[in-house]
Amino acid sequence: MSIKALDVIAIGNAIVDVIAAVDDAFIAAEGMAKGGMTLIDAGTAAAVYSRMGPAREISGGSAANTAAGIASFGGQAGFVGRVRDDQLGNIFAHDIRAGGVEFSTAPATMGMPTARCFVFVTPDAQRTMMTFLGASTEITPDDVAPAIIGRAGILYIEGYLWDAPPAKAAVLKAIQAMRASGGKVALTLSDSFCVERHRAEFLDLLDAHVDILFANEAEIGALYETDDFAAAATLAGKAVAVAALTRGPAGSVAIAGAERVESPAEPVAKIVDTTGAGDLYAAGFLFGQALGYDLAASARLGGLAAAEVISHFGARPEQSLADIARAHGL
Amino acid sequence: MSIKALDVIAIGNAIVDVIAAVDDAFIAAEGMAKGGMTLIDAGTAAAVYSRMGPAREISGGSAANTAAGIASFGGQAGFVGRVRDDQLGNIFAHDIRAGGVEFSTAPATMGMPTARCFVFVTPDAQRTMMTFLGASTEITPDDVAPAIIGRAGILYIEGYLWDAPPAKAAVLKAIQAMRASGGKVALTLSDSFCVERHRAEFLDLLDAHVDILFANEAEIGALYETDDFAAAATLAGKAVAVAALTRGPAGSVAIAGAERVESPAEPVAKIVDTTGAGDLYAAGFLFGQALGYDLAASARLGGLAAAEVISHFGARPEQSLADIARAHGL
Repeated sequence: MSIKALDVIAIGNAIVDVIAAVDDAFIAAEGMAKGGMTLIDAGTAAAVYSRMGPAREISGGSAANTAAGIASFGGQAGFVGRVRDDQLGNIFAHDIRAGGVEFSTAPATMGMPTARCFVFVTPDAQRTMMTFLGASTEITPDDVAPAIIGRAGILYIEGYLWDAPPAKAAVLKAIQAMRASGGKVALTLSDSFCVERHRAEFLDLLDAHVDILFANEAEIGALYETDDFAAAATLAGKAVAVAALTRGPAGSVAIAGAERVESPAEPVAKIVDTTGAGDLYAAGFLFGQALGYDLAASARLGGLAAAEVISHFGARPEQSLADIARAHGL
Repeated sequence: MSIKALDVIAIGNAIVDVIAAVDDAFIAAEGMAKGGMTLIDAGTAAAVYSRMGPAREISGGSAANTAAGIASFGGQAGFVGRVRDDQLGNIFAHDIRAGGVEFSTAPATMGMPTARCFVFVTPDAQRTMMTFLGASTEITPDDVAPAIIGRAGILYIEGYLWDAPPAKAAVLKAIQAMRASGGKVALTLSDSFCVERHRAEFLDLLDAHVDILFANEAEIGALYETDDFAAAATLAGKAVAVAALTRGPAGSVAIAGAERVESPAEPVAKIVDTTGAGDLYAAGFLFGQALGYDLAASARLGGLAAAEVISHFGARPEQSLADIARAHGL
């Protein structure tokens, strides 16, 4: 085990994505909210799997994708999340470690299998997800070693963890460890439906603990119950020290107190699969913040990472983000 | 279970591919023969996996890819091969069935885990493979139901099965069932190193049982121990009723008695990963033969299918081959 300092320690669901190209009729027939994430149980997962076409498996998980992105930039990242000691768990653990992320959460030897997320990609490159959280929901405070949190400058938490009640205690322990060591706490709101489920808790969390907030337009609107992005952004800017808000092809807005930076989206030759766009934006932005970059440079790194990941299937970078950043003079 | 007639019943190793982009230095450091397939045991598989980068998992297996290709053309295909009742086995069974292939071999409830093949793709789009055959080597004659063989017009066999001695008895049973029902037997030589290992048996098999032979330039050269493609092609043409020989970017040569058809390769905008090129050529060619097409049209279907599969990672078609064939007036 390395004892080096970490730029970011991320905590989230440890998931393998099962990615299939589908048409809009499939999304409609399955009754899914297009663009959203629906939680499913093991029985539903088996039933949906039997109805979907051939797929490819690529490691995913929102915060895990972000950690992989930071490592691809050349940053030091760690990940805390729970898999089972099964083949999918082995795939998840291999991929995140092989990507340069420190991952030392022991695989569970009993309980539910490793989480999987069915990612349905429509011809417009939008992704609609159904997630069986499995083993990842059973993460407990025992899985969070304060020592690893204390080695990191930033703790990054995915909002999806609120869908797994036992995970909340683990998150709270991680937050307390990070507070004790004087680092920063970052949160992504993850999904607008997730925000609807946990709005009050998220608002309390922002007030009490969050330094850096990530959200897309739908999520920040859901949090503040408004369709007015400007109004939601103003509220976010007052709630946290740094708010990084993404708007898909319209780019991003980063706010820190009185400072406000709007950044255009990076051009992409062909958008294939938007899965992971927010996760990788967060990777670039957090890496920039860890390096002490200003809002504009942090947002630029986020935009470059998001552009890479939406140019192919899967939510982990396939090209070196460090090379991409260098090629753009960052 | 359907009782419809099958165009082709394929028998082969049931494998999930674990695909990673690597540089040539990795191939050299691992001591692999570039472009070839090396068999590895479970311990070596774990060691190699720990040294390789993040990967994606896509169902593979040579004859299984061919069956998937035939189904994508709209043909009726079945597959016989053995997985374990584990997560990779479940992925393999899902993907081949979801692709429209009849697959009824029961998963093993004990023994080795489902086979996996590490596919290392270099920047030149060449693939170099290391395969842990696992459960697929334990296929026995009991896994071959003569009834399913008898429903098919063509039995398609992958030469790789000769690397798994117990599988040979299963193949022989399948050949006898096909002979009894009056159908044709097709064989692919699979890999030049595989041919080196089993040359005498392959030559005997061609004499005794094979109607349609698939091989690439290296494989047919290895079979007849010559670097002279024209000489090897002539020998192949005399050994079997139909020989379909592929030459990568140089296209293919199909020979049936005195008839000889040379076909150019289909143009591909960007070759990403050549894995499955031969498997999909065989799919198109066999589908053409099943429909009663002539050599030229059969080879054209093979070329179109190969062109589709080398344009992306993974050895199964991602676009409908039926649509592609229609778009080309076939």
